[in-house]
Amino acid sequence: MMKYINQFTPDLIKNKVIERNKKIGQDACEIIASAIQAADPYQCVINNISNEGGVIRIGKRVVSEGEYDRIFVLGMGKASPPMAKAVIDVLKDKIEFAAIVTKDQGFLSESGYGGLLSVLIGDHPLPSTSSIEATRTILKKIPTLTSKDLVIVLISGGGSALFTLPAPGISLGDIQRMTELLLRCGADISEINTLRKRLDLVKGGGLALKLHPAQVHTLILSDVIGDPLDMIASGPTVPDSTNIEDALNIIEKYSLESELPDSILLHLKNENAGEILNSKQAGSGNRFEANHILVGSNFTSAKAAHKKALALGYNSQIISTHLTGMTKNVAEFLDGIIESEIVQNVPIQKPACLIFGGETTVKVTGSGLGGRNQDLALNMVQRLAGKEGILFISFATDGDDGPTDAAGGAVDNLLYSDGALKKLDIQKFIENNDAYHYLEQTGALIKTGATGTNVNDLVVALINM
Amino acid sequence: MMKYINQFTPDLIKNKVIERNKKIGQDACEIIASAIQAADPYQCVINNISNEGGVIRIGKRVVSEGEYDRIFVLGMGKASPPMAKAVIDVLKDKIEFAAIVTKDQGFLSESGYGGLLSVLIGDHPLPSTSSIEATRTILKKIPTLTSKDLVIVLISGGGSALFTLPAPGISLGDIQRMTELLLRCGADISEINTLRKRLDLVKGGGLALKLHPAQVHTLILSDVIGDPLDMIASGPTVPDSTNIEDALNIIEKYSLESELPDSILLHLKNENAGEILNSKQAGSGNRFEANHILVGSNFTSAKAAHKKALALGYNSQIISTHLTGMTKNVAEFLDGIIESEIVQNVPIQKPACLIFGGETTVKVTGSGLGGRNQDLALNMVQRLAGKEGILFISFATDGDDGPTDAAGGAVDNLLYSDGALKKLDIQKFIENNDAYHYLEQTGALIKTGATGTNVNDLVVALINM
Repeated sequence: MMKYINQFTPDLIKNKVIERNKKIGQDACEIIASAIQAADPYQCVINNISNEGGVIRIGKRVVSEGEYDRIFVLGMGKASPPMAKAVIDVLKDKIEFAAIVTKDQGFLSESGYGGLLSVLIGDHPLPSTSSIEATRTILKKIPTLTSKDLVIVLISGGGSALFTLPAPGISLGDIQRMTELLLRCGADISEINTLRKRLDLVKGGGLALKLHPAQVHTLILSDVIGDPLDMIASGPTVPDSTNIEDALNIIEKYSLESELPDSILLHLKNENAGEILNSKQAGSGNRFEANHILVGSNFTSAKAAHKKALALGYNSQIISTHLTGMTKNVAEFLDGIIESEIVQNVPIQKPACLIFGGETTVKVTGSGLGGRNQDLALNMVQRLAGKEGILFISFATDGDDGPTDAAGGAVDNLLYSDGALKKLDIQKFIENNDAYHYLEQTGALIKTGATGTNVNDLVVALINM
Repeated sequence: MMKYINQFTPDLIKNKVIERNKKIGQDACEIIASAIQAADPYQCVINNISNEGGVIRIGKRVVSEGEYDRIFVLGMGKASPPMAKAVIDVLKDKIEFAAIVTKDQGFLSESGYGGLLSVLIGDHPLPSTSSIEATRTILKKIPTLTSKDLVIVLISGGGSALFTLPAPGISLGDIQRMTELLLRCGADISEINTLRKRLDLVKGGGLALKLHPAQVHTLILSDVIGDPLDMIASGPTVPDSTNIEDALNIIEKYSLESELPDSILLHLKNENAGEILNSKQAGSGNRFEANHILVGSNFTSAKAAHKKALALGYNSQIISTHLTGMTKNVAEFLDGIIESEIVQNVPIQKPACLIFGGETTVKVTGSGLGGRNQDLALNMVQRLAGKEGILFISFATDGDDGPTDAAGGAVDNLLYSDGALKKLDIQKFIENNDAYHYLEQTGALIKTGATGTNVNDLVVALINM
């Protein structure tokens, strides 16, 4: 069965801040566990597919026996192993074959599925020759399809790097170079994918073209804020909402013209001049009638956290699932809301659980260790000093915050003095982006281990006084 | 009667964005009017003082006939004229005299009160010799008091500059120089007042000392976020929550040691060395038992806006009354919440009225015209483009946003294209801090005129789709 830990107890999390806050610490663990469980890729797929009496339901679409000949399953992304397992568990031997590309096999290495499932391994966050090889292997497995074939496509975060086939004339090195440049200048995932889509044969609807005229059903676990379906894994089967102009605007915005590989600039220039008809625009047949189902997202986790908080007796509210911005600024906003909660009982009456979802950004100025959730937590330490009855937790739903073994951090009113007693100069840790070591030394790191899902980050603030 | 406009209609506000949004534009006007009315200084005082059958109630304290001999009224701050009028209207000829220092006479110029009220004029935001003269005049009027005397002190924003008496050895020029330095380096009002209190004989409880052993009742209209009573007008009658160390830390934080006048540095050094006993610490007799009543604040206005929005049929919520930060960052944060509201009905079901109070900061990089509310509105224009059914308004409750004749701005989904049609390059307006001219040319300025109150800023977002 699943190897991922889906139950967090104060004991498992081993966090001093959670432990000493007893009841609200325990509550926080249950809320975190609910949030992560709700976005479990296996469960999210199971919730959206069924097979009863020969009638297959995928999302709201129903396909009866006789309406299809063959079923194929394709998957790309870090969560594709559990997603594929769910489809296989439901449809079993109705499936011709399932082929997925992912970062690591996870629990699937234990089970074989008797040759039904091919698990291919690519690289993330930068695509590699393994990614391209895996993509080619998958494409080669797809036979000539008819309109009576049914293809279930499973998309999750990481798919852009894992499932890739650069357009003719563009090398892997060119794509890697572009991705690095974009990451370095702070481009967001939608901007990166807007460019990727123009330079790749399988992104931006490219796979859908290849699957034509089959019936394509896409199940998507979102790791992009706002859940723009065509951006998640660069939308292999989703109509592209962007165009060549958008791509050129991004290059202009970040002044990348002089740094990008010539091959990429030439390709974009040719498309802009109409000399390359972007292959995805060519055969836009029936793929736009395709069935796209968002099976899980940050909102899924936020709602589960909210529901659990209500059950635990809190007045709870999701304030936003679109929390973005630099950690330092986000800390100021969150502190303002927490302060209003303490002194004025707004936005809601105490005991309150305030939930925020999204993904913040760290402005890296130092050489320390950390991640965006840990950095946000560190920026709250001084702000929450002296504010009794508060437990603030920021964590990555995939359990993986920055290049660390932590998911995030927990902060209460005492953490600042804890640090001071240990002679930790918090300003220096902030300036050096060394949240990990401040939180480690004060016992405030949240470690969940790999959770098997990835629906961005959550902030949970419990306010009980 | 009151000259201040307390009813705003689309016709009076003359804002194209409000007009074209018809129903929600009308609703926004009613919400703004309610917010400003609720913080009307006259009404805020009237709500907190009564005189029935010889029994005077001030806040929760009751003073019966026989428990007092004489009543004096002292006021300092921009709202002291209407505040004094309210006390005089309630207590009438029970009052020995009322003396206030304010920035302009406002409507009081029309009425004389038969010599009962002395209105003295000082200067704001920088104190002047007029401020000092006015302060001296008021202090001279106060006779020797007994414990059977009752002094009602009326405090409002601007009081720090209007009511001031520098400590011996410190000149007005020194104080002005320090205030300018602090404003320039972005110190907030609490930081500025922490220093002011150490250098002034009437601030930080200094007036309370002078009034000893009278019964002192202080009515406060807050213009400081979080309503720290000792910071509003630098707390003439409120125990000081800060000390010499806090003052020295602020100088270090902004590296002001080399720039501050020698007289100020010497004074602080002497106090730090214990050579000056800060006069306010000397006779801390019964003044700490004084009665401090917060009669109005940003929360007062936010609650009134909330109540009106509910009455108009919106699901309404005050999210925070502690909204601070740079306008650009605040815009990102507010946009995230609005986006969640649009796509997910969080934090509340639509039709929604989301209310935020506080005071943002503008990072000035250009030479244009604007204020923090206009700048925030300008930063929302592109973000709200295409989001139908939204009306976003940010305004200063005193009607006075930056060095302009506007209170703030209104933004909807069409304002971006309005600007584009007029060939306005919004990025250039943002970079040049020229919000006023962008909003003026697109008809989006909110002009309320002077409202007579000042309880910081409000953001109201109506979301109806």
